[in-house]
Amino acid sequence: MSKILTIGEILVEIVATKRGNGFREAVPLIGPFPSGAPAIFMDQAGKLGQDCAIISRVGDDDFGWVNIDRLKADGVDVSGIEVVPHGTTGSAFVRYREDGSRAFVFNIRHSACGTIELSDKTLALIDTCTHMHVMGTALYAPSVVKSILTAVERIKAAGGTISFDPNLRPEILDAPGMREALQVVLAKTDLFMPSGEELFLFAKASTEKDAVDELLAKGIKAIVVKRGAKGSSYFDGDNALHLPGYEVEEVDPTGAGDCFGATFVTFWLSGMHPADILRYANASGARAVTKAGPMEGASTRSELDALIQSQGNA
Amino acid sequence: MSKILTIGEILVEIVATKRGNGFREAVPLIGPFPSGAPAIFMDQAGKLGQDCAIISRVGDDDFGWVNIDRLKADGVDVSGIEVVPHGTTGSAFVRYREDGSRAFVFNIRHSACGTIELSDKTLALIDTCTHMHVMGTALYAPSVVKSILTAVERIKAAGGTISFDPNLRPEILDAPGMREALQVVLAKTDLFMPSGEELFLFAKASTEKDAVDELLAKGIKAIVVKRGAKGSSYFDGDNALHLPGYEVEEVDPTGAGDCFGATFVTFWLSGMHPADILRYANASGARAVTKAGPMEGASTRSELDALIQSQGNA
Repeated sequence: MSKILTIGEILVEIVATKRGNGFREAVPLIGPFPSGAPAIFMDQAGKLGQDCAIISRVGDDDFGWVNIDRLKADGVDVSGIEVVPHGTTGSAFVRYREDGSRAFVFNIRHSACGTIELSDKTLALIDTCTHMHVMGTALYAPSVVKSILTAVERIKAAGGTISFDPNLRPEILDAPGMREALQVVLAKTDLFMPSGEELFLFAKASTEKDAVDELLAKGIKAIVVKRGAKGSSYFDGDNALHLPGYEVEEVDPTGAGDCFGATFVTFWLSGMHPADILRYANASGARAVTKAGPMEGASTRSELDALIQSQGNA
Repeated sequence: MSKILTIGEILVEIVATKRGNGFREAVPLIGPFPSGAPAIFMDQAGKLGQDCAIISRVGDDDFGWVNIDRLKADGVDVSGIEVVPHGTTGSAFVRYREDGSRAFVFNIRHSACGTIELSDKTLALIDTCTHMHVMGTALYAPSVVKSILTAVERIKAAGGTISFDPNLRPEILDAPGMREALQVVLAKTDLFMPSGEELFLFAKASTEKDAVDELLAKGIKAIVVKRGAKGSSYFDGDNALHLPGYEVEEVDPTGAGDCFGATFVTFWLSGMHPADILRYANASGARAVTKAGPMEGASTRSELDALIQSQGNA
C-alpha cells in the first residue's frame, strides 16, 4: 500500500473579489481559504482515498486550524503538522489583475512554516511513506530545503519513488545554493511534472522532444507536462501521449496544477495505464478551476468520473 | 514648537464584514486598512496639523506602503519607518462577534515591526521631538520596549514630556519584565491616559478619586480617563472635569481611543484649557467610530469644530 508524503508551506489564502492591481487600498476580500501548494496537493490526494501525509508548521490560530481541520476531513494524515505556540500561520493575499495575472502579498518565510525542521516524530512519519512529492514552492527556506532533501534520500533509499513539480518562483531559483539543491532532487526524481516552459529548466535542449529525451536519459522514468486549459502530455521510454483539457467555466485557476499533480501521482502509484491517468489528472485540473478558493475544487473519484463521462471520455 | 513621537506597531487591518466568531471558514472581508494603535494615534495628530513622527518597521510590500502613504499624506514624519527587505508588514484580522466583542488573528511579533531597533538615524529623529507618547500595545517585543524606554529617557532628559496610554493586552502584562518596564514609564509620565478600569492598573486604591490622588502624588501631572461613548474625565491638582460623549452612530469603534488620545495630547501641548481639550478629544473619539476602518475616522480640526457646534458645545 502506497503512502505519499510532502513537506512544505501551509497557508491561508485571502482573495480580492474585484480585479485590480495589488493591495494599496481597502478592497472587498474573501477568506481565509486553506491553501499552500503542498497542502492543496495533499488535500486532493486525500479526497481520492490515497494514504498521504504532510509535514509542515502552522501557528496556534484560526488560520492554522482552518487548514488542519480541512486536511483531516479530507483524509490526510496531519500528524506531521506542528502547531507552533505564539507562531503565525502563513498567508497569501491574491488579487487578479484585469489581464488574468496575479498580484500577491505573501507571508511565508516569517511564518510558522518558515521554521520547518524534522524531529524524531516526523522522521518516523517519513519512514511510513513510500513516495515523496517535492513541490518547488516549498524550497523557500534553508531548513525546509534540508528537510525535503532528507525525506527524498530516506524514501528513495527504502525503495520508494519521487515526483517533482518545479513550480518555481524566480526569486527561489536565484537563492544561493538553490540550483544545486534542485539538481540533487532531479537526480532522484522518478516522475517529473513541469508546467509548460519549466520543462527546459534542467535541459539544454531547445525543443520539447529533445528536452524530454535529455531528461529521460538522466534516469527520470516519466515526464508529465502540464499545459493548463490546453491539457497535458506524458512521456516515458515507450509512450508519448497528448490529451486536451476538459471544457469548463474557469472561476479561479489557483490550485489547478496541484490538483492535477496529486491526481496523476495517486493513479500512477496504483499502476493505472498512463493514458487513463492523464485523463483523470486533466479532469482534476479542470474541476479545480470551477470553484473559488485554492483547494475548494479538489475532487473525489466519482466527481472525476462524472466529468470524464459527460465529455465523451475526451 | 512641539513635535510628538511614538514607537510601535504598524499593521494592516482586515475586517470581517459579517458578525461571527473567528476565522475558521472563508467569510467576506474588507481591507487592507492602515492600522496599529501607534499609527492611528499619529495619523490623528498629523491631521490636526501637529508636528509628529513614528518609529516603526514595515515589509517591502503593498501593506507597508498603504500605511506609509496614508501617514505621509496626513502630515506625519515617516522618516523613522524602515522598510525591511524581504520583511512582512504586520497584520490584524478582526471579526466582531454578535455581542460586540472582537476576535483577532494577529501577526505582529513575527512581522517587520517585531524587529524595531533604534539606529543613528532614528536616535537623531528622537532628538527632534519634544513629546513621547507611549502606547501600551507597542510593548510586544523586548527590542521595542528597549527602544521606547530609550526614547522616553532622551526626550524627558531634554525637557520634553511623556504621555502614556496603557492600552494593555493581558498577555503583555504577564510577559517577563513587563511590569517593571511599565513602572519605569509611569515614573516618567506627565499625562496618564487610561481607559476605564486601567486607572487601577498602577494604583492600590479602590475608588476612582483615591486612585487619581494616588497617581498624582507619584508625580503624574494630569490624568485623562477615557470612557468610550460615555465621555471622559480629566484630573490634575486643581481640576476634576467630566464631559459626556457626543451622540453619533457607531459603525466601527476600533481606533476611537487612539484618535481621542492624539487629539488630547495635541491640544494639551498647545496649552489649551483642559475643559476645551476634553471637548475636542471627545469629539475626535466620537467621529472615529462613525467610519469603518481603524484610522478612516481621524478628523481635521474643522471637522471637530463642526461636530462640537452641531451638538451645542456639549
